Amino acid sequence: MDFFYNYLLYLIPVFGLIGLLVMAVKSAWVTKQETGDANMNELAGYIADGAMAFLRAEWKILGYFVVIAGLLLAYSGTTIAGSSPVIAVSFLVGAFLSAFAGYLGMRIATKANVRTTQAARTSLAKALKVSFTGGTVMGLGVTGLAIIGLGSLFIVFYTIYVKNTGADVNHEAMAKALDVLAGFSLGAESIALFARVGGGIYTKAADVGADLVGKVEAGIPEDDVRNPATIADNVGDNVGDVAGMGADLFGSYVATMLATMVLGREIVSHDNFGGIAPVLLPMVIAGLGLIFSIVGASLVKIKNETDSVQKALNIGNWVSIVLTAIATFFAVRWILPEGNLYLIRDLNAEGVIKSGAVIFDKTGVFLSIVVGLIVGTLMSIITEYYTAMGKRPVLSIIRQSSTGHATNIIGGLSVGMESTVMPILVLAAGIYGSFHFAGLYGVAIAAAGMMATTAMQLAIDAFGPIADNAGGIAEMSQLPEEVRHRTDNLDAVGNTTAATGKGFAIASAALTSLALFAAFVGVAGIDHIDIYKADVLAGLFIGGMVPFIFSALAISAVGRAAMAMVEEVRRQFHEIPGIMEYKAKPEYEKCVAISTKASIREMIAPGLIALITPIIIGFAFGPEVLGGLLAGVTVSGVLMGIFQSNAGGAWDNAKKSFEKGVEINGQMYYKKSEPHKASVTGDTVGDPFKDTSGPSMNILIKLMSIVSLVIAPHLHKEVNHNKRIQKELHLRSMNMHVIKANKTL
Amino acid sequence: MDFFYNYLLYLIPVFGLIGLLVMAVKSAWVTKQETGDANMNELAGYIADGAMAFLRAEWKILGYFVVIAGLLLAYSGTTIAGSSPVIAVSFLVGAFLSAFAGYLGMRIATKANVRTTQAARTSLAKALKVSFTGGTVMGLGVTGLAIIGLGSLFIVFYTIYVKNTGADVNHEAMAKALDVLAGFSLGAESIALFARVGGGIYTKAADVGADLVGKVEAGIPEDDVRNPATIADNVGDNVGDVAGMGADLFGSYVATMLATMVLGREIVSHDNFGGIAPVLLPMVIAGLGLIFSIVGASLVKIKNETDSVQKALNIGNWVSIVLTAIATFFAVRWILPEGNLYLIRDLNAEGVIKSGAVIFDKTGVFLSIVVGLIVGTLMSIITEYYTAMGKRPVLSIIRQSSTGHATNIIGGLSVGMESTVMPILVLAAGIYGSFHFAGLYGVAIAAAGMMATTAMQLAIDAFGPIADNAGGIAEMSQLPEEVRHRTDNLDAVGNTTAATGKGFAIASAALTSLALFAAFVGVAGIDHIDIYKADVLAGLFIGGMVPFIFSALAISAVGRAAMAMVEEVRRQFHEIPGIMEYKAKPEYEKCVAISTKASIREMIAPGLIALITPIIIGFAFGPEVLGGLLAGVTVSGVLMGIFQSNAGGAWDNAKKSFEKGVEINGQMYYKKSEPHKASVTGDTVGDPFKDTSGPSMNILIKLMSIVSLVIAPHLHKEVNHNKRIQKELHLRSMNMHVIKANKTL
Repeated sequence: MDFFYNYLLYLIPVFGLIGLLVMAVKSAWVTKQETGDANMNELAGYIADGAMAFLRAEWKILGYFVVIAGLLLAYSGTTIAGSSPVIAVSFLVGAFLSAFAGYLGMRIATKANVRTTQAARTSLAKALKVSFTGGTVMGLGVTGLAIIGLGSLFIVFYTIYVKNTGADVNHEAMAKALDVLAGFSLGAESIALFARVGGGIYTKAADVGADLVGKVEAGIPEDDVRNPATIADNVGDNVGDVAGMGADLFGSYVATMLATMVLGREIVSHDNFGGIAPVLLPMVIAGLGLIFSIVGASLVKIKNETDSVQKALNIGNWVSIVLTAIATFFAVRWILPEGNLYLIRDLNAEGVIKSGAVIFDKTGVFLSIVVGLIVGTLMSIITEYYTAMGKRPVLSIIRQSSTGHATNIIGGLSVGMESTVMPILVLAAGIYGSFHFAGLYGVAIAAAGMMATTAMQLAIDAFGPIADNAGGIAEMSQLPEEVRHRTDNLDAVGNTTAATGKGFAIASAALTSLALFAAFVGVAGIDHIDIYKADVLAGLFIGGMVPFIFSALAISAVGRAAMAMVEEVRRQFHEIPGIMEYKAKPEYEKCVAISTKASIREMIAPGLIALITPIIIGFAFGPEVLGGLLAGVTVSGVLMGIFQSNAGGAWDNAKKSFEKGVEINGQMYYKKSEPHKASVTGDTVGDPFKDTSGPSMNILIKLMSIVSLVIAPHLHKEVNHNKRIQKELHLRSMNMHVIKANKTL
Repeated sequence: MDFFYNYLLYLIPVFGLIGLLVMAVKSAWVTKQETGDANMNELAGYIADGAMAFLRAEWKILGYFVVIAGLLLAYSGTTIAGSSPVIAVSFLVGAFLSAFAGYLGMRIATKANVRTTQAARTSLAKALKVSFTGGTVMGLGVTGLAIIGLGSLFIVFYTIYVKNTGADVNHEAMAKALDVLAGFSLGAESIALFARVGGGIYTKAADVGADLVGKVEAGIPEDDVRNPATIADNVGDNVGDVAGMGADLFGSYVATMLATMVLGREIVSHDNFGGIAPVLLPMVIAGLGLIFSIVGASLVKIKNETDSVQKALNIGNWVSIVLTAIATFFAVRWILPEGNLYLIRDLNAEGVIKSGAVIFDKTGVFLSIVVGLIVGTLMSIITEYYTAMGKRPVLSIIRQSSTGHATNIIGGLSVGMESTVMPILVLAAGIYGSFHFAGLYGVAIAAAGMMATTAMQLAIDAFGPIADNAGGIAEMSQLPEEVRHRTDNLDAVGNTTAATGKGFAIASAALTSLALFAAFVGVAGIDHIDIYKADVLAGLFIGGMVPFIFSALAISAVGRAAMAMVEEVRRQFHEIPGIMEYKAKPEYEKCVAISTKASIREMIAPGLIALITPIIIGFAFGPEVLGGLLAGVTVSGVLMGIFQSNAGGAWDNAKKSFEKGVEINGQMYYKKSEPHKASVTGDTVGDPFKDTSGPSMNILIKLMSIVSLVIAPHLHKEVNHNKRIQKELHLRSMNMHVIKANKTL
């Protein structure tokens, strides 16, 4: 049996390796596609250079941050008894791999965009193949690196702390290995926060800025080469929607596995053997999901111009989900021990299970995974309903656009608020259900199940901005209308997948945070978070407030950066003669520099709030108040995330509806009509909502949870942490057979 | 000593009686003021009739509701052991007095408005006197009725359940008396919810509707007699800002006293005597606050045209707060027992105080009251900063108006979100501080201290809409400019007091809800609410979502009702020839009917959500999950309340700033400029934010807490409630001297 688990242990990075190999093949295929004429290549070059310029500027700042944070971690690891400076290494690897995953995604996206444009000159099928293969490369890169990184580091720490010391795998030696491994997740999520917030500010500053002067003042269309901000706008799609989303999901993916592993260590069974299996299970599920994502992705193709792109994506998605679910069923049966399972924390000092705790078995674990898959699917469906054209919510905004800007805004805000109801009920039912089936381990493994097919989700998500960019290049290069028509077709599908992707991302962030929350409680050695206590309640209030100030900072940063962009574009129109007559080239790089500088500068304050708040509250008021803070952040962050993302998505599609014409009270309205102008206002307000502050909520709640998990062993250490260790040692010294599985207690 | 407390008991309604007597005198004084010419009287008559029409329509619906709810309460009181059908009586009295208080306020406001206009023809001093006396009548009516009602019912129930049975005053007999008394608060708050939501929808539907057609389409000024919706707009000021605010504070005032009384019953001291004093204290403080509000109100006056109205109000306000604080200091010293005090719930079954519980004394109780006063004051100051002209937040919105509607909206939303930070920190510190000084009783008594001068607060609040109405009548009657100038002066001060009043109202609602929350936990017999449990966490999520759907319903109701108003006004302009030439009178009553009907219809759904959600969750999942729900509602409701109220207030004053002209990037902008138009959009969005959904949050969180408190004895009764009673009986049977006051435990 030991041999088997050792074998399994080393198998995990192999899953990741397979992912990276397939990625390399697909990446090479994309690279050797035709890139079109010189003009297209020049524009694509600007975009790729701008994207790299942003990455370099971001890395420079993050380099300082990573070094300082790493030193602090190493220092606290050296000085605080029971901790280890090795966590700094773990942190650095996590940060590096997250940044590297972002780089890989960005590189392939900026290659695939122009190749998609060129492919669209031939057929829709070809264009889909190029753009979706680009997305697949991104998805495989992110998940492959995550599995290799986490799996390898776990092997190292397991060997050092557990195997070489001959310790019990459920022992506190394993707890230490996982405490150190948490640094990996902290590194990944820190980079993710800055990438998501910075990228979100970048893309919307460029977008809003380009529109305000280009479309409104100068009267030139979107993606017009004469607009100095147009390259920055296209760079923004890659920086925000590709790299930002990738970093977000890389972070969720890693954090979910980590939290489940921490809870898995605590599992004991009647024959005193939970062993390493529940710790490995989340990584195994992720590995299986990666393999079946490759299978699903290979099915995404169409033959004719009139075939449905959405349907092709759906088939691939469903195949990978269903195959992963089936494989997971067998993996769970095969790996997990037989009989009743408990978490150590649910036993009292005499080994009797506490009232309210759940006794579960391997079937329960599988059912929890199914709950996670259902939650993810429902969240996507609900998000689509609230943001799709032709459905009641968007239609209501269209109708309210007929009485002006203000009623359009009121309509969008009320749709966004209303759209929180169903997702929250689904989430609450998901928490309740997965807990019912397998306790807190169930909540965590539900998140892991949901995240299993992240590679496929990311492929679908990243394909959208690639197609969007391809359309931009087609427009700027003044290619024939049929090309733009094909890229528009892909882009429209991409808008839908972007919306559903956001629903998936927020659901995954919520479940991940809850898993981290549960892991935090265990590691901090507390066994309740009682909001009936005044200080915990105060923490809950402060936590609930954080997403509001975070959103305020993100939104106002976009406003300021867009203003700077407007001024630069106005300056160029003034000072460079001949731009309007295509005689002179605008200085694209100056606009790129403005967006880059602004986004890098503005991402710091919200980032620091997320990092420092839990540290201050945790050390000043202890782990229980910190738990209250986390609960507040999670609830309020999920609500604000759904509200802002869906309001923004609905406003966007309300505006887009006018392009084909809409009927209000028996009259048709098109572009440039008064209701359309009102809808443009809503769309502009919605831009930072849906692409900056809304999706940042995901990372905010995850990052604050991970920071708490990392500092958890050091909070009230003398009291709680040692108490936990002692209790566990005591329990292990007892014959576990004596545990009374008294369900009625 | 017994004699003394009996004396004190009967003194309480006397405080209320004094309030009502002074009210009658002041009301008579207002009534005998001059009412001006026939034209003014006619308009005032329309407004008064419209206001009464709304009240009658509202009462009709609420009549059904009160009868059904009362029967349900009586039925459950009869069938559930340990409860009493008498609670239905209590409920009916609360509902009736709340409605009656609203009627009194509305009647005096619709009398004072035209008399203020007439007084403004003489001097500013006279106009202030009339309008502020009107406000004082409202304030004294609300608080006087509350004290008489609550105090008298308490005497009745105390006599029936405690005195006549010879039971111990801390005994469960007293618990029963207070359980029944909770019905009074439920009745009051139910009416308050419908009044606040209905009134909020009414006033904004009329306001937005009147503006959209009148100002924008027909190009006639605000408050023009030719606009058919102008009377509805003026009625709205009374319905929303007077009756709605009055009902809100009536509810807070009663609920705070009740919650403190419930906690006060649990107080025991070393010599086994907490007695009735801690139960009576909140009503005594309210009585003292009422008396000193009369003193403070008598100081609000000016002599010359150039005297500062704001300063006069501030003097009156501060005098009443300081005098009340001093009197409270002596009352606390005199009434409360000496030595260490504890809550029964903080003792374990052996009489040993639990870890984390607070041992306090009478000085701590007084300090908690001071904390409450400080919190209320700070909240008002912060709210003023975020909504006042010339301060950074409003200036930032003005600047962002220069780039259009969208940036104005982004600016306002981000100001609103940012404005949650300081209030939440103050509130968290207030919870922490008042708990530190006197445990949960401290949190409750802090709220009671803050609410003590409600009469003065209401006088200041209600004076604003009276002055606003007076200005409207002056405009419609085409009185000389100096009259309008004087009412504008009063109205401007009224806008500031409206903003600070909202800060006060949300702070009071938050503290009141926490007090109710604490009372609920005790009555339900649970001793913790552990959000680490999956079901409680699910409850927290659902609770957090309720303010979002509530706001969505309220906001969209305003949108729909405003649309109906627009259509009616358009119809009248079309079908009644001669309106524009002053030859024909518009059918004002039809617009009044539309607003009335819409607001009555639209208030039902949000009202039922608030009433039914806690009942479903409580009975389906038990008291602890319900506790999670309440915490979620409170945190999210306070945040959404502050966000929406402040965003709305800031947008309003950004727009108003353009009337005097504003400088943006070295250029001056006035009314009708493009930035001004953008600011009008923000103001229109802000209208339902600040006057409908924002302030409704107060009542939402209070009402859900009260419903929970009322059903608390029936939740998991067999387990928790009986356990509580048994533990209390056991503790009382012990010699209380044995309590070990082990602070380090």
